[in-house]
Amino acid sequence: MKVVVKVGGHLFPSRIDASRISDYIVLFKKLKKDGHSLVVITGGGIEARKYIKTARELGGSEFICDIIGIMFSRINARLLIAGLGEDAYSELPTSFEELRKAFEIGKIVVLGGLQPGQSTNAVGILSAEAIDADLFINATDVDGVYSADPDNHRNATKMNIVKADNLLKMVLNKNLLAGSYKLFDPLAIKIVKRSGILTRIINGEDPKNIERVINGEKLGTLVSP
Amino acid sequence: MKVVVKVGGHLFPSRIDASRISDYIVLFKKLKKDGHSLVVITGGGIEARKYIKTARELGGSEFICDIIGIMFSRINARLLIAGLGEDAYSELPTSFEELRKAFEIGKIVVLGGLQPGQSTNAVGILSAEAIDADLFINATDVDGVYSADPDNHRNATKMNIVKADNLLKMVLNKNLLAGSYKLFDPLAIKIVKRSGILTRIINGEDPKNIERVINGEKLGTLVSP
Amino acid sequence: MKVVVKVGGHLFPSRIDASRISDYIVLFKKLKKDGHSLVVITGGGIEARKYIKTARELGGSEFICDIIGIMFSRINARLLIAGLGEDAYSELPTSFEELRKAFEIGKIVVLGGLQPGQSTNAVGILSAEAIDADLFINATDVDGVYSADPDNHRNATKMNIVKADNLLKMVLNKNLLAGSYKLFDPLAIKIVKRSGILTRIINGEDPKNIERVINGEKLGTLVSP
Amino acid sequence: MKVVVKVGGHLFPSRIDASRISDYIVLFKKLKKDGHSLVVITGGGIEARKYIKTARELGGSEFICDIIGIMFSRINARLLIAGLGEDAYSELPTSFEELRKAFEIGKIVVLGGLQPGQSTNAVGILSAEAIDADLFINATDVDGVYSADPDNHRNATKMNIVKADNLLKMVLNKNLLAGSYKLFDPLAIKIVKRSGILTRIINGEDPKNIERVINGEKLGTLVSP
Amino acid sequence: MKVVVKVGGHLFPSRIDASRISDYIVLFKKLKKDGHSLVVITGGGIEARKYIKTARELGGSEFICDIIGIMFSRINARLLIAGLGEDAYSELPTSFEELRKAFEIGKIVVLGGLQPGQSTNAVGILSAEAIDADLFINATDVDGVYSADPDNHRNATKMNIVKADNLLKMVLNKNLLAGSYKLFDPLAIKIVKRSGILTRIINGEDPKNIERVINGEKLGTLVSP
Amino acid sequence: MKVVVKVGGHLFPSRIDASRISDYIVLFKKLKKDGHSLVVITGGGIEARKYIKTARELGGSEFICDIIGIMFSRINARLLIAGLGEDAYSELPTSFEELRKAFEIGKIVVLGGLQPGQSTNAVGILSAEAIDADLFINATDVDGVYSADPDNHRNATKMNIVKADNLLKMVLNKNLLAGSYKLFDPLAIKIVKRSGILTRIINGEDPKNIERVINGEKLGTLVSP
Repeated sequence: MKVVVKVGGHLFPSRIDASRISDYIVLFKKLKKDGHSLVVITGGGIEARKYIKTARELGGSEFICDIIGIMFSRINARLLIAGLGEDAYSELPTSFEELRKAFEIGKIVVLGGLQPGQSTNAVGILSAEAIDADLFINATDVDGVYSADPDNHRNATKMNIVKADNLLKMVLNKNLLAGSYKLFDPLAIKIVKRSGILTRIINGEDPKNIERVINGEKLGTLVSP
Repeated sequence: MKVVVKVGGHLFPSRIDASRISDYIVLFKKLKKDGHSLVVITGGGIEARKYIKTARELGGSEFICDIIGIMFSRINARLLIAGLGEDAYSELPTSFEELRKAFEIGKIVVLGGLQPGQSTNAVGILSAEAIDADLFINATDVDGVYSADPDNHRNATKMNIVKADNLLKMVLNKNLLAGSYKLFDPLAIKIVKRSGILTRIINGEDPKNIERVINGEKLGTLVSP
Repeated sequence: MKVVVKVGGHLFPSRIDASRISDYIVLFKKLKKDGHSLVVITGGGIEARKYIKTARELGGSEFICDIIGIMFSRINARLLIAGLGEDAYSELPTSFEELRKAFEIGKIVVLGGLQPGQSTNAVGILSAEAIDADLFINATDVDGVYSADPDNHRNATKMNIVKADNLLKMVLNKNLLAGSYKLFDPLAIKIVKRSGILTRIINGEDPKNIERVINGEKLGTLVSP
Repeated sequence: MKVVVKVGGHLFPSRIDASRISDYIVLFKKLKKDGHSLVVITGGGIEARKYIKTARELGGSEFICDIIGIMFSRINARLLIAGLGEDAYSELPTSFEELRKAFEIGKIVVLGGLQPGQSTNAVGILSAEAIDADLFINATDVDGVYSADPDNHRNATKMNIVKADNLLKMVLNKNLLAGSYKLFDPLAIKIVKRSGILTRIINGEDPKNIERVINGEKLGTLVSP
Repeated sequence: MKVVVKVGGHLFPSRIDASRISDYIVLFKKLKKDGHSLVVITGGGIEARKYIKTARELGGSEFICDIIGIMFSRINARLLIAGLGEDAYSELPTSFEELRKAFEIGKIVVLGGLQPGQSTNAVGILSAEAIDADLFINATDVDGVYSADPDNHRNATKMNIVKADNLLKMVLNKNLLAGSYKLFDPLAIKIVKRSGILTRIINGEDPKNIERVINGEKLGTLVSP
Repeated sequence: MKVVVKVGGHLFPSRIDASRISDYIVLFKKLKKDGHSLVVITGGGIEARKYIKTARELGGSEFICDIIGIMFSRINARLLIAGLGEDAYSELPTSFEELRKAFEIGKIVVLGGLQPGQSTNAVGILSAEAIDADLFINATDVDGVYSADPDNHRNATKMNIVKADNLLKMVLNKNLLAGSYKLFDPLAIKIVKRSGILTRIINGEDPKNIERVINGEKLGTLVSP
């Protein structure tokens, strides 16, 4: 199965932790051995925010800030590649063209962000579209999409399935009000919809969840086109 | 003044017409002579759709279809560069990194699309952010943003100003219902908002409108951050 | 067998037609399955001429016009890649260096033109030389080389074999008089001669002719070094 | 005057500080205004070490660790570029070839590391050689070369001048014993010697020292070829 | 005036000679000072042949042999750049796209060959077309085009002017018979014709001839479109 | 076994000799057949020195001279690739990033120098580190490291093993005195030490020595980390 996995910033906290990353590496190696073709997208992590704040204080535009975020996501990608050793494509694609070329080789391809103005979630689903993937997994630190922000609403319930259009409305309403609930951005959702690629938002704090989803378990929330 | 102008597909119809393009070239040369620094983004035009349709019939993904659209937008950019002669940077940037390098030279830089999943409107406002522009002009075939789709609503009125958040809601509602009213996509609007760059949607069928806006006239619709 | 096939503009008419292209795709997939290594070169097609004419009217040099022709040939290459799916190398080489790298992967490599001043026929035979091919097939809309221009000479007969030097003389005489009989340009013929690569000019309107030549049938005209 | 300045990790501590960086930016802008041509090399800083340690724990080679250090030095370079605005070349050279091209433009060029196995000090003096600089300043957190490690030897005295060959011996003896006194690595010293470029090691904690050296003051230690 | 000069292998003999090259460098610097914009193309020289012969003995194709010739022409270009110092663009374009970008900077651009199957004469006239040059000078070791091979025909007379079509016929007849009289190859002549760029073949052994041609003297042979 | 072999300038003398190079090619093909993964680094050879001297006379910096040396080492690499045919990766990596990508393909990768200021010995051991090699062989024209310069000291004895730190001291002492005994430069030795990669300096004039070392014979001098 061709699978794209986005691993979020929660895997790359301020106190970066090799053993935590190592659990993911063990899993990815196993999935490759089981015959799956993998592309992994890494987020920028917590440390990126410190530098982005500094760039902003120095007068850098949001465009520059995005570039710094991308650079951090690529450092995180390097950590995964370091641990994956022979199982990983040894370099980082910096465009979809390069991703497609690298994917031809038959190893796990790891990449970070690609372009300002674009979340790594969007890179994830676009990568899935670029390699014609069977499944896109967004491994985050929540266990799916909630009917409301779980931090503020006691009765918020996790949804097993949500239509892309509805998710878009939910994200936009949140975005316009609070700006911090970024499971998915509008561009990413648009690509889910147009590509029809099976997409699941799951809790990736336990890496085994990723394997379970690949094996067909209905974890987290399915975003349906 | 640093200005980014997006010229839409209406300039590149199926019967491509040198005299029409020529009017734009004369204007851009004049603006450069007047001391303005210009970046011009070209859309894919009508012809692109024929090839995209064929690619889809052959089994190409939407990702591939986007690439073909980008290739057409770059051919259109070549036409402008051909006419601009010495006043244009002679090559086409294919990333924001290249755009920034090219802009250092001091000539008019013309580019098409950059990446699948991204409209040339988004390329336009991101380019504006990349070069820290004073103004972004989206030259389309309508004279601004209407309170409703003018084709279907007799009473639709043109808005002189619209907040980015409101435009986003309008675009999304349309997008989800009909899918064809693409003044601006959500990503583009998000960048207008975060960058705070002055953005005007105007009727570009008469190229003089572009000059009038640069000279301070309040044509079309202002999108306010 | 390592084979390079040049497919001419006749496959990419103004009314671009997916079913026609599809016949070629089916053939190329079969050839790959049969164990052949393929490189396919696409011409610019009819649509390119419309844009080239516009570029010329806008004052673009022949150099620019060639670039636009190359861009169209690459769009045509994308259509083939879209249809070939997993059997094709997913990106387009833009230099012989890239072609050689891509060919290492073991998939069908499709490319268009490479450089101004150079026909896609020349790209074809140079590609054959670059990968050390066993056979170069120029699939055109005539069934071989004629002793005279068949449109004007009733008695013109198809030649089963022609020496490169003689073909060069024929082409040059035509070129200097009429300019429109472009089976092969002088550069392409020079490379046929120096490389000694078996070269056949055949009627490609029926894609099966390509397979027949690969299987050893003596169709069209053999250009002998 | 053509000047290359290396700014060390002390400018990029774990608690990255915009105001500290800002002092340097003000200085570099002034130097440019005064007519100097500047190239600035940034080190990796303290934060890099945390990630390098993690990469090593995950099994990454020293080669990979160097790559991560280079990536951090480039993020630091971005911070300077963000603050320099229009005075800086907007992109980061990633090879000497690109550095030379960028330097042609006439703006301040900022870059980080280039290649594994090579300190940013070596990048600094090689950059000086690449652009044929008049002066290379290594702005560190000590005020010059000492006759012995000042941390361990009370009587260590700062040297006003040291021959490259002697510095090499000192560095190597330290390197082989302790490994932590990295004013200059052997490669960097070799280039100082062969290029004959005037080189000063100074205390860069006060950025004014950089200006004083450019104006001819004999601060820190001169490394003589 | 925008001028492209091709300097042939005679400037780069087996015993490479700095003083001989130096005369050209002095001239090119003067021409730049006089306000001319220059592109210089260097041939491969005598030394290239030794390596090409070895490559052929090792089983390398003509394609590989051409690549080696190109690599030598680039080494020769480096020698000119080394001597031109600040007056030259410091890097070597390796495609026409890069040539056009480099030419924007306003310095002398020096390049060698670009692609297998293409003489440096062809690179010269294509470069002239790429930058829209006023004049292309082919500085060789003969003083123009002769009505017959001067080595074999006592009565051969130098032609002051020759039409491109006639030159093509002459070159081809020679080429097919003897193969060694390579003033211009067919591709180069075709580009002279289509571009209409004023082209002179002169004796470059005395570099002053180049200046005299730029100043309007009718030296050597004019190839008329 | 993953092996990196550096072949020195002695293989590329002024009278370049196909049969000598051919012996190496036969060996490398055999090693590949035996299941070894090879990277081969070529030095610049004798001919490079002639051009470097000319560049220096023309005023070129040592930086430029290094570039010319690199270009020659790449021509030498081309000769090997020409002879290796299908067994070699057909293009030359010009950075470690490209080397790592090329090595993924599974063919013999051949490269020359990469960057000014860096010997091809350093490229060799860095390449070994980049691909995580089991063995690095420096095939020179002496049969190992001597306790003193064998040309001047009758009693000099070959060492079977030398610690990296000691080799560094020896090299530096030589370097500072005479400058011509370049078995290994300081950077190369530093990488041997940090990578812990098994490194042997052997006499490569008989290519069979390379095979013997790979098969476990203790030829030449082992440099121990």
